[in-house]
Order: sequence, then C-alpha cells, then structure tokens
Amino acid sequence: MSAFDAVLLVLTSPGLAEPCPEPAEEPATKLHSGNNDDGSIFVVADPAAPHLRVQDLGATRGDGIFETLSVSNGRVQALEAHLTRFANSARMLDLPEPDLDDYRSTILAAVARHVPVAELWVKTVLTRGVEGAGGALGIPTGWVLAEAVGDLSAVRTQGIRVVTLDRGYRHDVAETSPWLLQGAKTLSYAVNRSVLREAERRGADDVIFISSDGFVLEGPTSNVIARFGDLLMTPCTDQGILAGTTQANVFSYAESIGMKTEYALMPFAELADADALWLVSSVRHAAPVNALNGRAMAVDVELSRDINEYLLGRTE
Amino acid sequence: MSAFDAVLLVLTSPGLAEPCPEPAEEPATKLHSGNNDDGSIFVVADPAAPHLRVQDLGATRGDGIFETLSVSNGRVQALEAHLTRFANSARMLDLPEPDLDDYRSTILAAVARHVPVAELWVKTVLTRGVEGAGGALGIPTGWVLAEAVGDLSAVRTQGIRVVTLDRGYRHDVAETSPWLLQGAKTLSYAVNRSVLREAERRGADDVIFISSDGFVLEGPTSNVIARFGDLLMTPCTDQGILAGTTQANVFSYAESIGMKTEYALMPFAELADADALWLVSSVRHAAPVNALNGRAMAVDVELSRDINEYLLGRTE
Repeated sequence: MSAFDAVLLVLTSPGLAEPCPEPAEEPATKLHSGNNDDGSIFVVADPAAPHLRVQDLGATRGDGIFETLSVSNGRVQALEAHLTRFANSARMLDLPEPDLDDYRSTILAAVARHVPVAELWVKTVLTRGVEGAGGALGIPTGWVLAEAVGDLSAVRTQGIRVVTLDRGYRHDVAETSPWLLQGAKTLSYAVNRSVLREAERRGADDVIFISSDGFVLEGPTSNVIARFGDLLMTPCTDQGILAGTTQANVFSYAESIGMKTEYALMPFAELADADALWLVSSVRHAAPVNALNGRAMAVDVELSRDINEYLLGRTE
Repeated sequence: MSAFDAVLLVLTSPGLAEPCPEPAEEPATKLHSGNNDDGSIFVVADPAAPHLRVQDLGATRGDGIFETLSVSNGRVQALEAHLTRFANSARMLDLPEPDLDDYRSTILAAVARHVPVAELWVKTVLTRGVEGAGGALGIPTGWVLAEAVGDLSAVRTQGIRVVTLDRGYRHDVAETSPWLLQGAKTLSYAVNRSVLREAERRGADDVIFISSDGFVLEGPTSNVIARFGDLLMTPCTDQGILAGTTQANVFSYAESIGMKTEYALMPFAELADADALWLVSSVRHAAPVNALNGRAMAVDVELSRDINEYLLGRTE
C-alpha cells in the first residue's frame, strides 16, 4: 500500500442501512452509489479533485454534521467518544443513522494510508446529500479526510489570547428550543468562524461564548476548563454546548492525579477569578489562556505540559 | 447555443478584483483559476458532475453566502436588489467583495442557456473557498445554478399552514452582537431547515420565527406580511432579519393600488389579529397563511391572486 500526504476516502453508503437504490442514470462518480463491487465501503479519492456537487445540502445549507479527531503517532484518540457524538449529532438533525462500523474502519484506513507523521487530524462528515435525490430521507454524502497537523507546541505552551463574546442564546435554549440545534456539531459554522474574525479585530486568538443571560458556554471549536486551586471546572453540558471528548479525557487525567473535577453553571464573572484557564479541543489539545479580554492571565506551565503530554500519549 | 434542463456556470474569479495567482500545481478544474483564456468569466459545467472539493469552506463550515432569484418567462426579477443584498452579505462575513457585474452577466447567461420555461429559480453562491488556499483572503468559490420551478399554484392560492417557533435571539441582537451574522444570507442554514422538520412534526408547512423577547421576525426563507384593513405591515428589517426583495416589491404594488404600508416592531400576539397573513419569498412568491399554530386563518383570495400576478409580471 502506498502512503499519501493527505488521504480522502469517500463513503459509498453513509447512513444507509440498505444499499442505495440504483439511480436511474449512471452517476458521474461513485459518491452516492451503494457498496462497491468488491464489497468495500469507501472509494479512495484524490484530495485535490472535486467530489461534491453544488446541489449537496452540505454545501448549500450547511446541512450535515462532522467530527474532527486527533491521531497521535498513528493512534486515533477518543475514537469511540467521537463516533458516539457523531451519531448523536445525526439524531439531532434527523439525519439517517450513520453506520459507525463503516466510519470507524474508514477512519482507520485513512490513517493507515497516510505517511507516518507525529500528529494527524481526521475529519468525518455526513451531509443530507444532494437536494431532491433519492426518497424521503435522500441519499446522504459521507467522507473521511486525513491531513498532517502543523507544529502546535507554541499555543500549547505559551497559550492564546481570548475574548468573551455573546452567543445570543439563553443558557437553557437547548431545552426550550431544540430546533436551534445547539449541542449538535453541524456544518453550519459560519458564526463559529465569524467570532474568530471578531476576536482578531480585538487583538485576540480565540473566543469564549457567553450566554445572553451571562453564563460561560464554550469556545467556537473547544471547551472551557478553569482551575480553582485543585479543582478543574467546566460548564455543564446541558446548556446547548458540545460534550467535549478532550475535556472528558482531561477530567479523567486530573482525577488520576488527585485533583477534583466539576461540571457547573459558571457565571461569566467567575472566569476572571480562575487560577488558570484552558480551551481544550481535539487537535490543538489544551491551549492555556494567557489573556482574557485584554487582561493578562497566568499560564499554569506545569499542568499545561502534563495535560498535553497525557493527551498525546492516549492509547485509545 | 443549445439549451439545457439545468444550467451550472462556475465563476472563475468570484470576489477577486485581480485574477488569482496561478496555483503551484495545475488545478483539477477551472474552479479556482483566474479568467479563462478567452476572457470569459465563467465555465459551463455539468450540473450532475462534482465541482466542489471537500475542503471548500462552503461545505465544511457553511462559510459563504447566497441569493435565490426568480425568473418569470425569461425575465430575472429584482436582479439589482438581489445583487445589492449579495454584496451586503459578503461584507457582513468579511468575504472578498463579489464582482456584481460578473455575477449579473453569469446569471443572465445561465437563464439564456436554460430551456424556456414559465418559471426558473437561479441560485448564486460565493464561498470562502478551499481552506488554506491562497493568501490572506483565500481564493473564493462562486457558482450560478438555474433550474426549473415546479407548479406552485396550490400554495399560492390555497395557502400554507404555519407555526411560530422561538429563534432564541432577542430582536435587537444584530445591533448588540453583529458577529452572530443575523441579517446575512449565509450557507449556514441547518437551523432554517431544522425548523421546517419541527413544523412538519406539528402538522404545518412553514415557520414564522419569534424573537426571544416576543417579536415577529421572518420565516426561515421568507418575510412575513400581515394585512390589517387596508394596511400591509411587515417587521422592521433592523431586527436581524433579511430585507426581503419580494416584500419590498409587494409593498410597492400595495401602494400603487392605494393601500398603506408600514415597517413595525410587531408583538407576537398581533399576528393572530391580522385580517390576512402571507409568507413572501423569491421563488414561491406570496403564500397565504391558512392556519396559524393550528387555528384556521382566512385567506385573502383576491389580494393573494393580484399580488402573485403582479410578482410574476415584473419586468425588472
């Protein structure tokens, strides 16, 4: 098997319990067909070539879901937690249930085909497919893309400057208005990108969202962890935020070294009182916050190093 | 020139004042290159073939903008109003400024190439392009797609069942938190689709969004117009809602026949007191509301007919 710089595998029947019905006309690609003749569940594709039609609802409506996984020295980290969250996002969007066995083996195949590097990121996607295609649920589109991660040692040690921004929603909106999809990891991330540009305008690198009623939520692609003495605290995950796979692993690690952990409703003002703050996520891992809304914050150098060493050393 | 059932034109340099720098390697398609050898600004493409890379930020982050235009008997309706709004959405997302002359001529070319039909819809899109490509602004992706519209006479005459749903944002959120992109027509429309599934679960066809503080906003792809006697009322457009091209034309028509029109802050409770309600949008035009939250509403048959005849007869 040859190895590649970037690996794109297109799933042939993501989220379909049965193989797709044969389309009336021969499709231009294998993208929406059923299993391949040889029984394999994906097609190896050129990452530099086009694979999506402009009518795909992923591209026209951000109507789909994703996960981004980290691979450290060939080991896919928190694979099952990511797959579970992927399936949960699909349910929240009324998407067909993705076949997690197919995604798992496709993720592993993408990693195996990539040239060996210290760190990879792997993105898995499921969209509602081409508008109007197929039956009631349509024929979904799925892919897995693996690429090398650049050097992140500076942000993991020196940290990042963070500003807080209003998310506009109350902290209980996921409960009162589930159709707003808060807590699902969707492809509709224009706002998650817009707030990073606002952060840049304010001289910062990243964002912590605050609910309209004043509670700490999450970053646009990360979870918030605050240290108060020997306690690590993160916002409750029933506030329309993503249950973080990396955050959960950091809590496990903290408990293993005798620290306390807590999920809490965190008033905005508590952030500034923390002894240390991190934004944690799958690829960047633990990025210590060195400034909050323009005010310097102390970086916990030792714990940041220990957490990141632990995260990069995970064996599952 | 031959005519087609669906016409896809891919813009070669959307939003780029200068032609793109030549990529280091030959791209797989003309999607991201500069102007063509013959000076034309688009590439004619097969709508059934793939054209987007899976790394396009339109597909992975819903990071782009769109407009949907209506074409009646070959005449593109409200073309300049749509182009103006397209440019406004680009500014709100800090996208490169789209070349409106290029989009205008590409829209007209798509219409000219389509087989003649009574009604077409034309979608124009601009995305932030492939992640990591190009310089500071990246190289955007743009396309124009034209397809025939099915028979909409039933919804235009008999009407639609509508439910109101919480949008989660206060009515003044566009002013307080512009990074939430309310009022921009982005590709991040997963929620706009989710609410239609919630409507279906409630036995309805469409939705009117209500702000978290109780004001009428808009539909997921339409504007709300209410009639009280000889007055047509629509929610103020400074509440993070799209300024409707069709709504503006309906108001012009109403004034031409001696009706009064008003942009207002509309408390939710006023909806049920209206003599008639419509959701108006570019392709469906004026759809009278025949039931609101399960309660029957009278359809203004005559005015619905007159408005739709006017909309379909527009010459600009």
